[in-house]
Amino acid sequence: MRHVHTLLRGRWRDTWADDLLAAAVVSVLLIPQSLAYALLAGLPAEVGLYASLLPLLFYALLGSSPYLAVGPVAVLALMTAQTLVQAPVGIGSQEAALVLAAEVGLLLGLAALLRLDALAALLSVPVLHGFETGATLAIAASQLPVLLGSPAQGFDLPTLLRSAQISEWQIQPSTLGFGLGALGLLLLSRRFLRGHWARVAPLAVLMLAVLASWAVQAPLRGVHLVGHLPPLHLGLAWPSLDLELWQALLPGAALIALMAYVSSLVVAESLGRRRRERVDARRELMGLAGANVAAAFSGGMPVGGSFSRSSLMYDAGSRSRMSSVYTAVLMGVAAFSLAAPLAWLPRSVLAASILVAVLSGLQWRPFVQAWRYARAEALLMAGVTLLVLNVGVTAGLGLGVLGSIALLLQRTARPHVALIGRIPGTEHYRNAGRYQVQLHPEVLGLRIDESMLFTNVRSLVDVVQSQLQPQTRRVVLQMSPVNSIDFSGLEALRELQETLQAQGLRLDLSELKGPVLDRLKSGGWEAWFRGQVYLSHHHGMMADLPEGRDWVSP
Amino acid sequence: MRHVHTLLRGRWRDTWADDLLAAAVVSVLLIPQSLAYALLAGLPAEVGLYASLLPLLFYALLGSSPYLAVGPVAVLALMTAQTLVQAPVGIGSQEAALVLAAEVGLLLGLAALLRLDALAALLSVPVLHGFETGATLAIAASQLPVLLGSPAQGFDLPTLLRSAQISEWQIQPSTLGFGLGALGLLLLSRRFLRGHWARVAPLAVLMLAVLASWAVQAPLRGVHLVGHLPPLHLGLAWPSLDLELWQALLPGAALIALMAYVSSLVVAESLGRRRRERVDARRELMGLAGANVAAAFSGGMPVGGSFSRSSLMYDAGSRSRMSSVYTAVLMGVAAFSLAAPLAWLPRSVLAASILVAVLSGLQWRPFVQAWRYARAEALLMAGVTLLVLNVGVTAGLGLGVLGSIALLLQRTARPHVALIGRIPGTEHYRNAGRYQVQLHPEVLGLRIDESMLFTNVRSLVDVVQSQLQPQTRRVVLQMSPVNSIDFSGLEALRELQETLQAQGLRLDLSELKGPVLDRLKSGGWEAWFRGQVYLSHHHGMMADLPEGRDWVSP
Repeated sequence: MRHVHTLLRGRWRDTWADDLLAAAVVSVLLIPQSLAYALLAGLPAEVGLYASLLPLLFYALLGSSPYLAVGPVAVLALMTAQTLVQAPVGIGSQEAALVLAAEVGLLLGLAALLRLDALAALLSVPVLHGFETGATLAIAASQLPVLLGSPAQGFDLPTLLRSAQISEWQIQPSTLGFGLGALGLLLLSRRFLRGHWARVAPLAVLMLAVLASWAVQAPLRGVHLVGHLPPLHLGLAWPSLDLELWQALLPGAALIALMAYVSSLVVAESLGRRRRERVDARRELMGLAGANVAAAFSGGMPVGGSFSRSSLMYDAGSRSRMSSVYTAVLMGVAAFSLAAPLAWLPRSVLAASILVAVLSGLQWRPFVQAWRYARAEALLMAGVTLLVLNVGVTAGLGLGVLGSIALLLQRTARPHVALIGRIPGTEHYRNAGRYQVQLHPEVLGLRIDESMLFTNVRSLVDVVQSQLQPQTRRVVLQMSPVNSIDFSGLEALRELQETLQAQGLRLDLSELKGPVLDRLKSGGWEAWFRGQVYLSHHHGMMADLPEGRDWVSP
Repeated sequence: MRHVHTLLRGRWRDTWADDLLAAAVVSVLLIPQSLAYALLAGLPAEVGLYASLLPLLFYALLGSSPYLAVGPVAVLALMTAQTLVQAPVGIGSQEAALVLAAEVGLLLGLAALLRLDALAALLSVPVLHGFETGATLAIAASQLPVLLGSPAQGFDLPTLLRSAQISEWQIQPSTLGFGLGALGLLLLSRRFLRGHWARVAPLAVLMLAVLASWAVQAPLRGVHLVGHLPPLHLGLAWPSLDLELWQALLPGAALIALMAYVSSLVVAESLGRRRRERVDARRELMGLAGANVAAAFSGGMPVGGSFSRSSLMYDAGSRSRMSSVYTAVLMGVAAFSLAAPLAWLPRSVLAASILVAVLSGLQWRPFVQAWRYARAEALLMAGVTLLVLNVGVTAGLGLGVLGSIALLLQRTARPHVALIGRIPGTEHYRNAGRYQVQLHPEVLGLRIDESMLFTNVRSLVDVVQSQLQPQTRRVVLQMSPVNSIDFSGLEALRELQETLQAQGLRLDLSELKGPVLDRLKSGGWEAWFRGQVYLSHHHGMMADLPEGRDWVSP
């Protein structure tokens, strides 16, 4: 009941007007999107409506962000479509969607319990952006045949082309007519309308299309319609407990859960930061878990936080999670009153609204920026996009996560090593390759710009060895870039000392970080370390330096 | 021909006496080990001899270390035994071993061509030590039934126990007698002999056992003998080109190649360092590749660098890779002359020599040291050992590599964040939680002890946000621990600046590393970065500081 308390907290009396307005604005967009994304997932249109009722209440109860608009999302709908294919033969996709939503919800709940919110780190910016771009293009590609009235289907380019070939590139002119009309109106509204008018446009186009469809008696002309929605019933029912079905959908559910969490978190954080509000990642996990479980019990599909609707919610002035509650209520009213007119809605009009919604979110600049900053990451980004578009979401995400880890390993594997010298007249030491510095012939100062980890320590001894001069008597490693030392690093440090000792040289360390030194001490390194640890590199260099020898410029 | 040149380089006239002595010492140990490790791999004893002839010549030609004693190795023999089980039914294990050696050689050659020598980093110290301990115990366990004259077989504890149960714990007393006798003599020789005598002991025990076996007519008493070796023939022959066989052995070959390379490199490096000689990792890859391909064409098995024999080679004074050439020649002579007497050798005597050789290498101290230094790594080490012993080498190595990567991700995921203040009267800044420092109320100095990578940057904005004070006007991030910034880090930095700007605060950076700054500049960050970059953190803190405000002690 603590959650209900934090939800209401007596504040709703102050905020209800703002929240209700935001809810109205969001509902106007949510109606067409919920129907369209359900169809995108290969499910009946009303599933989208069900997924926009109870899930919003549960997010309001358990979540944390006042701006996150939960419900059907295009990318998750695409992932749902690709996952439902895995269901065993003979099981209806609507039944499978409930199980999938239940699994997504349970996995998110488990992640919240086990405090796995750090798992979001698995998706780096290149992977996330590459994935979203690929998914957007795949969604657009899958909606083209619907717009054209073609029977072709598929969520990746090869499947789509094969399917179009089988159907002999057949199109249905009247359906296409409705689709192009809607597309034109939507693009024009985006171009010329602002403010409230722009927000109402998608719903207005839908209503216009219904009127036109009825006026020209579209079914007689062969136009593909959404068709009669069954009477709305919010009866709660358990999702199927068929073990085989649960197993078949589990891998897909894990990816959907990860993507639902990360994409929602990114949206909630970026909106929250504009008002210095912090997002509680665990609460978000709980909120999304509750929303998905609610979807599973009320005839819905996997849900997440929508970028476009959340931005709208923020702009429209939402102040608390009560706006989600109001949205659910408005959606309930709409669902009851829209059943009859929606039967007349051409599918190609919904396809047009999906196309406009997703393609407006496409961003190519990050590809350029990544290419200029780090080619390997740009290639990873593009690779993920191409895989999602040509193979599927699983392949894309899999490559992305593995690729990110490989780049991380490579990054730590080849540390930058700097011979450091003294800036004349100061106690500052800098890379001798970049600054005018002085070196001392008998004391070698080195800085290795990386933590000492198993990925790189194999070369530590060789790196130091290669910098030794004939006159060197002592080596001082400046440890300020060393943020941690793992067990392999500890062994390498010991081996370095032994190797230097065998040549009559002493190894000293300077500017060791506090936590690193603590760890070394607790591991008993004082039993074998023979050198000194200096607070500043300058003290380390000057210790027992014979007065006669002078610093030299290299 | 360049390799032949570097091998001979006219120096062999100076070093031949030392090299020949080292070769003789190593051969004396290699004879029993080569036979024993072939049997350990589930192959006829003579395969070990073949693997000690041509492969040594090819290593001498292509490799780099004058100390590495290439040939059959216990751990690789264990891995070979576990891999040969994967061969399709109906293919002899001797034929499969040739294909396996060919694959190992080709993979190592490919790694040399693609400059994948950094792959050695995949095996951290905990994984390597855990693996070697587990493999040693598994080898010892597999040799116990041979010592006891029991028909039980297996390379992991469950298989071994099941097999012993099926054979009803049957043992063969005469075989056991020979085994215990050899074991006793070997242990006594280790305890009481030193220098040359100790080195000759394993071969002497073998010869004694042959004499005793002949004297008591061991076959009549049921003693399990090595049996007649076929006449030695060094005919070259292609390994089978059966595609199914190659595919079945490939995963095992990859692991054997990785282990052969890493364990040989560790040995070659640790010996080379004692004389300030650097090991060329790529040349080692080439040498091992050549040795394994040679083994595949001359009736051998996968080979690598042996720790025990390499130490012997170093101690005995080897000075060039000609010692490997001499070892091969001596092994050829021995192989011709030993065929007849070896027929009388009891298998349990070879088992005893394996037991003594591998168990003497067991080290428990690294487990204790790792436990004291880093529990997670100690648990990984122990986990790898237990998996190798109870499931197999693939499971052990697989868990090890994944576990190391998981620990690396976790390590970079939760960076240590320090609020840093000025040590009074100096220009030095240290962690305010550890040192007596002064802070400035309007300028916040922070240090994040980790590179800015996708694994941790998601929390960057929150971390900085949580340190802001009401009076803060400016934030200076000390960047000396930041060794690299990936694309996700760049985006986070931009987001941090935007968030601070929205609150009227400026973000400055200090002590940026040269390579990091170069990368930022090449990525066009100057187009959006509004702050300053200071060479020293003190300059960053003092910049446009109002004189009226004083530093305060927290």
